[in-house]
Amino acid sequence: MRRNFFVTYDICDPKRLRKVFKICKGYGIHLQLSVFECDLTETEKVQFETKLKEVIHHDEDQVLFVDLGVSHARGERTVSSIGLQYSKMDAPCFVV
Amino acid sequence: MRRNFFVTYDICDPKRLRKVFKICKGYGIHLQLSVFECDLTETEKVQFETKLKEVIHHDEDQVLFVDLGVSHARGERTVSSIGLQYSKMDAPCFVV
Repeated sequence: MRRNFFVTYDICDPKRLRKVFKICKGYGIHLQLSVFECDLTETEKVQFETKLKEVIHHDEDQVLFVDLGVSHARGERTVSSIGLQYSKMDAPCFVV
Repeated sequence: MRRNFFVTYDICDPKRLRKVFKICKGYGIHLQLSVFECDLTETEKVQFETKLKEVIHHDEDQVLFVDLGVSHARGERTVSSIGLQYSKMDAPCFVV
């Protein structure tokens, strides 16, 4: 069963930052800057975390997984913006 | 009735960034970098947005409000981290 997560990161080095961004793009929707929304099975989450662990420096970088519950109960996500318009960068996609 | 929001922002100017950070701290919990979690009544949300609108430059900054549903249905929020430990910066607080 898929769970819905917010993934947000604070990476100190630009090179690692780009790598983390690429990894995250493979697992969810880019909302803004260092914030993604992901729908993940348990297996996908473990894969995702393993890839991130190989890239980040554990003593200065941080990636947060905020668990928002099971995906099917999530309902339509309303995102409103102040300032620049919010345009969903990627169509919602599940990694199969 | 309070609703639960993720508030995340992309502010181009350091001075405005600090102002936005201060405003957000008055309305919720700082999760990381430019990401907050807020439980807001409709009135508080309008107040919050009004303050933000007075600070940001609408043609280059962006603040996103991601609606996560009614607060009482939110349940315990699980946040896990890779790298640096996640420590809830502020105790969860409702602005009364």
